[in-house]
Parts: sequence; C-alpha cells; structure tokens
Amino acid sequence: MTQCAVGHAAAAEHQQAAEIFSAVYRMSRDRAGVSRPAYSETETAVLKFLEELAVHAGLSTAYDAGQNLVMSLPEDAGAEQFVLVGSHVDSVPMGGNYDGMAGVIAGVMCLLRAKARGERFARSLKVIAMRGEESAWFGPCYIASKALMGVLSREELAAPHKGDGRSLDTHMEGAGIEMAPIRSGVPLMKAGDILEYIELHIEQGPLLIGKDRPAAIVSGIRGNFRYKAIRCTGEAGHSGAVPRAFRKDPVLAMSDLLTRLDEAWLSIVQKGGDLVVTSGVVHTDSETNAMSRIPDQVDFSLDIRSQDPETLRGMRQLLADEMAQISHERKVTFATGSLNATAPARMSQSVVDGLSAAMERIGLAPMVMASGGGHDAAVFANAGVPSAMVFVRNQNGSHNPDEAMEIDDFMAGTSIIYEYLRGGARA
Amino acid sequence: MTQCAVGHAAAAEHQQAAEIFSAVYRMSRDRAGVSRPAYSETETAVLKFLEELAVHAGLSTAYDAGQNLVMSLPEDAGAEQFVLVGSHVDSVPMGGNYDGMAGVIAGVMCLLRAKARGERFARSLKVIAMRGEESAWFGPCYIASKALMGVLSREELAAPHKGDGRSLDTHMEGAGIEMAPIRSGVPLMKAGDILEYIELHIEQGPLLIGKDRPAAIVSGIRGNFRYKAIRCTGEAGHSGAVPRAFRKDPVLAMSDLLTRLDEAWLSIVQKGGDLVVTSGVVHTDSETNAMSRIPDQVDFSLDIRSQDPETLRGMRQLLADEMAQISHERKVTFATGSLNATAPARMSQSVVDGLSAAMERIGLAPMVMASGGGHDAAVFANAGVPSAMVFVRNQNGSHNPDEAMEIDDFMAGTSIIYEYLRGGARA
Repeated sequence: MTQCAVGHAAAAEHQQAAEIFSAVYRMSRDRAGVSRPAYSETETAVLKFLEELAVHAGLSTAYDAGQNLVMSLPEDAGAEQFVLVGSHVDSVPMGGNYDGMAGVIAGVMCLLRAKARGERFARSLKVIAMRGEESAWFGPCYIASKALMGVLSREELAAPHKGDGRSLDTHMEGAGIEMAPIRSGVPLMKAGDILEYIELHIEQGPLLIGKDRPAAIVSGIRGNFRYKAIRCTGEAGHSGAVPRAFRKDPVLAMSDLLTRLDEAWLSIVQKGGDLVVTSGVVHTDSETNAMSRIPDQVDFSLDIRSQDPETLRGMRQLLADEMAQISHERKVTFATGSLNATAPARMSQSVVDGLSAAMERIGLAPMVMASGGGHDAAVFANAGVPSAMVFVRNQNGSHNPDEAMEIDDFMAGTSIIYEYLRGGARA
Repeated sequence: MTQCAVGHAAAAEHQQAAEIFSAVYRMSRDRAGVSRPAYSETETAVLKFLEELAVHAGLSTAYDAGQNLVMSLPEDAGAEQFVLVGSHVDSVPMGGNYDGMAGVIAGVMCLLRAKARGERFARSLKVIAMRGEESAWFGPCYIASKALMGVLSREELAAPHKGDGRSLDTHMEGAGIEMAPIRSGVPLMKAGDILEYIELHIEQGPLLIGKDRPAAIVSGIRGNFRYKAIRCTGEAGHSGAVPRAFRKDPVLAMSDLLTRLDEAWLSIVQKGGDLVVTSGVVHTDSETNAMSRIPDQVDFSLDIRSQDPETLRGMRQLLADEMAQISHERKVTFATGSLNATAPARMSQSVVDGLSAAMERIGLAPMVMASGGGHDAAVFANAGVPSAMVFVRNQNGSHNPDEAMEIDDFMAGTSIIYEYLRGGARA
C-alpha cells in the first residue's frame, strides 16, 4: 500500500472500532455508564451483535460450550490448536464501556484487518468474546474462563445474584449453557489446545497516563492477600483523664501499623520490588465512638498485592510481626478474621518478549508493567496456557462511568497484538 | 479521744457516708446506673434529701439564687466571706453514682465531723450542692457554677433539652430560679466573697489505681482544642492498579499524621510535659468505601488536652505544620472544620500546697496530678477564686454505671479537705 492508502486504512479502522464501541455502549447504557450483567440478556445481545458483525465481514463464528462467542478467519475455523485472543463483554453495574469490551474488540479488529488485507496469521487464531468475568454480579470472578478451564467451584455456582438472589448456576443455565460438565469440573476447552492466550485490557491505574505511553505489555498479574476487617481492640476511656502510659488506644495502634507497612512498602519499591498496600475501609464503632472518648476498637481492611509470591509471603510475615510488636507495646489486640489470598499469575516470558518485540517493530518503545487487577488471563495462565496481556492507557481507572480510553491508544495496543500474531511466532 | 474511740468514730463516718450514697442512689436509679437530670425533679429531690439530713444534724441550710443548696455550721451561716466546698448533684444519663455527688457528700461529711467533734474551721465554711454540671442534658456544661459567676451565655440558656427540646432557661425557671439576673449576666454569688473553692471528685482516669494511691491533689484542669471531624481527601483508585508513586491515600496520610502526633506526645511526656491526644472517631465513607478501593476520604476527630497553654499552642502549630508537610508529601488535603478550644484552668498554688501539706499531716504521701476532665472548679478558678481539687481513686472511669469508688478512699479524700480547713489556713 502507499503511505496514503495506509493512512486511509488506519482512519477507516479507527472509525470502525469507534463505531463498534458506540454500538455496544448504546445496547447497554444505564443511568450512569453501562451495565452488562454477567449471563444476562444484555450480554447475549452484545454477543449476537458481534456475531452478526463478524458474519457480515466474512468471518466464521461459533458458540463454545460456555455460550461464549468464538470468531476466526474461515480457514482457521476448524483448527484444533490455536492462539486465543479475547476478553469479557460483561461490565460492573454502571461501569465504563472499555473494561473487558476493549479486549474483545481488539481481537475482532485483528480479524477484520487480516480479512481486509488478505493476510494470514502465523498460527491459527481464535477470538473469544467471553461472558461473566466481573465479581460484581454474583461474587465469584472470572466465571466464563474458569468454566472453560473446569475450575468453577460448586460454591461459586451456588452464589446468589445480587439482584434477584437466584444462583449463578441458574443464570448460566438460563443463558443456554449445559451445566452438567461445569458442575463436574470438566473443562469446556482443553488447555493443551490453546497455544497462547493474549488479552488486551485498559489499564486500571494511572501509570501509562503518568508516563505518557499508549500501551504496555503485562509481565504478571499481582496476587494478593486480604483481610476484610481486622479488628484492633484496646480500652475505652475519658479522652482527657487517661495519661499516655495507661492508654490502650486502637486507633493509634492501627495508625502505627499502617505507617510501618507504608514504610516497608516504600523500602520494597525503592529496591525495585513490586507491591501495593491499601486500607480502604476504616471505622470506629459508630454507636459508641465520641470525640472525647478513647475508642475501644477500630476495624480496618487490608489489601496487599504483589507480582512476587516471595514479597507476599514477606509482607504476611511482616504484618504478623508488626501486629505482635504493636500489641505488646500498645497493649491492644488484633483479630484479623479470615484471610483471602490469590497467588500471582506469571505471564509467559516468551509471549511477553514476543509482544515487546512486536511493540518495537511497530515503532513503540517497549514497556513492561505489572497488572494490579485480576483478569481472565490469570485463569488461563494458572491452567498452564502461556499467556500475556497488553494494557492500553486509560483515564480515571476502571469500574466507573468515567473510564476514558482513546481509540488511537486502543489501535496501538491492537496493532501490537496483530504484529505479534503475524510475525512474532515465525522465529 | 482514745484510739478506740477514734476507730469507732471512723467506722461510724464510713457507714454514714455509705448510707448517704445509697440513699441518693435509690432516689435516682435508672435502667442502668443512675440518672439525675440537670434541673429536674430528681435533682430537686436529692437537694431536699440533703437539706433534711443537714437540718437533722443541726446544720444551717439555705438555697442560693441559683436554687443550689448551701449548708454550714450554724455559726458560719451569716458569714459574708467563706471557703466554699462542693460539687454537683446531677449525673449523666445512666451514669455512675459518684461523679459530682462524691464532692457534695465530702463537704457534708466535713460539716458532720466538725459538728460531731465540736470543732470549728479556721475560716468560715459553706458547703454547696450545685445543680446541673453535666453537658449531657442540654449541651452546655458547668451550668450552675457559670450562673453563680454570671457567665452563663444566652446561647447556652437557649440550648434545648435532649429529651423534651425545651430550653435550659425554661428548665431552670421550672426549678424555681429567677432568671432575669442570669440572663443579664449578673453574678449570683460574688467571686470576691469566696475565699477559696475546693472540690473533691472521683478521678476519671486510671492513674491512682495504677499508682495504688487513694487520693491526689489536682494541679490544674487541662484545657483542650478539638476538631469534631477533620476530613482528609485524596483520590480513589483500584487497590491493585495504582502504584505507590501515583497514590493520594487519605488513610495512610491520616495514619502518618496520628503517628507523628503520637511521637510528639511521647517526647513531650518524656520531658515532663502534660499532654493527652485522642482520635476517638474515624470513618471512611461507608457508602463508597471498599476493600479493593483506595479511599478518597477519611474523617477523624482530634481532642488534644494539656494543663499548659504553651503546650496547647505548640501542638496546634505542630498539627498545622505536619498537615502541611503531609499534604505536600502525599498529595492529599486536610480540612479541619471549626475549632473548639478551652483554656486550661490553673489551680491556686497556695491551696494546692495547703492541701498537699494536709495530706502529709494525715499520713498520706502527697501526690499532685492534672485533671483531664473539666469541672466546676475551672469556672471558679477562671472567675478569680483561688481553687483546688482533690481526686479520689475510682475504677472504670466516669460517666458510666461502672464507676467504682471505695468509701475508704472517699473518706481519705474528705479527711485531706477537713485537715486543710481545720489547720491549713492558720499559718
């Protein structure tokens, strides 16, 4: 193509992608932002829309046993082994239009570009538009990918819908899915058939905005350990009448603990380690607390994440050590309640390297970063599928109506994947 | 008297004091603890009970212009200048039996002892059983003593009762008080006529328990500055997706601030300074907070008290400096809202010295400490009356049904005052 033709083609793709996002937005608009509930009719309608778009463009389509939409070039439709590209179409309630959807449309755009250019991929490619991934509807997350890998548990299937209280199992069955294999933990897709899994996603943090970069390759998905409510208990007293030496102040104990964790965090980051620490929920007892009363207790949440299992282990130990020391020094007790922990998911180094090389070939300086949020890619990676992700610059975080991704950045991320699929696997 | 007679007299006094406390308890018993509302019929009934007790013992009684009960030896009834001993008879809702009442009964016991022994005081003594002191009923505190000193404000008089919503003015009028002088700020008692004001009170903290001492002399009443709700505002975000350098975390900023104030507190106390620091109320926004969300704001109260005006000034400056530095370092803002401040009340050094000497003369090692809570003594002291207090050991703090004062400790505190009144002023 001439430079002029390339420019025209790029402009046409830009417009086409924008139109697909707009159409999906109109189908799922809510009071604020969009709502595409997991295993809902809205979700089904979005898949149907993508199916018709794909068929109209001369692509092959099929639904897998989880009623996810699978699209490919016609010549790849029968491939037994394939690279899988995709993400999820559901959203959180009143969320943004890009979380999940961008990864699906990126895959669709790869197929449309190959079709338009008459190009083939180095290996067979299938693009998957998955259903439920968000935990907002039932509690469990990564539902569709867990079902595909045969790891959706009975507890998760029994989880009630936040609106109607009916189980996830019932809702999935309502979407036309045969549930017996899923209930038995039979994988709906063989992990061994998936050569690689690649997912484009909007960045949920501000790193790419801060560094003024359109996209990056994800090196790993942070694991975490979390406590919903750690209770620190001391002893109530008159704020004016109890000298320092006699105090058992849980708020100062909590502050001391959080400050120590913050200092450890700074030190680990300064040494190049990967860590984030958040206490998002903090409450003294609203029934008994008062300005002139030393509080007897405070509850606070803790969410600690890292790509590195060793860092997570170290932070668990540090937390235990600091709580023990502060309990001793300040005569308070800490009750952590039950622990929730998820192991970090390592992305495949060869896929990360391949995507980085592709990034460089299309004229972007390679950049690699961690993912803080969890993604379907973690499920495939933990099932043994070599996986990787491409993050696209996005304003205002995710899971809110203000997600703001530029289509130019989206197309840059899509082109990294396209370039990788075209050439990255030839070497 | 022989040793045996002294022992009998002490036992008799012990029993008499216990019976008075019990009688008052029975008159004001509530679902839990006691309730003696300010300017209520219960309060009037308690004064009436004390009046009858005093008359029966051959003492003189009168009601002052604030309808507080004033008792004395008959020969001191007409004294124009006098030492005033007393406290308040009201309690908080479902409070303990000793807060306030102990100071009144201590004065009564001094009169009863003098009468029984046929002794006179070095200077004329009047014992006052005051009405409302607790802020729990209307909001304003030290109501009776403020009215006596002519400093009860119109805003305070307009304050609505927590139960029936009628104003303090109306309730005081209902108790038989002529309100015109009070409304005009005319003192009901000349400060210049009060040679000294002495108040016994249960300690509201654990210091005497901790030091295993029955009583102590109060050196001053802590002043304070307080903020009901300081709001620290940062920026919400995904707990996993925002690296440390991009965070604006208000909970970590608050923790940092409280830890710095705590360190300053420790340093001031180690240097012998007087200070207490309390953050009794801490809340993230319960509508938007979540374990996996960096909070955008946290509200916390701050109550900082000291006997020393310089320490309070220093802490206000430190607070401002630390908030400015943390705002800069952590990219958050602090909005303090309105400040409430009360100046410390200095006790009279000569009365403190006199009470300490009396304490030593009756065989107790002198001990001097600060009062964290506020008391009527602060009103008299700030009106220019040389004032002091005696604290009596007490378990479980005050303003709750579990106040636990031993009568032996109460009698020790009473004896300090009696010894001071008998001999302390002779020198």
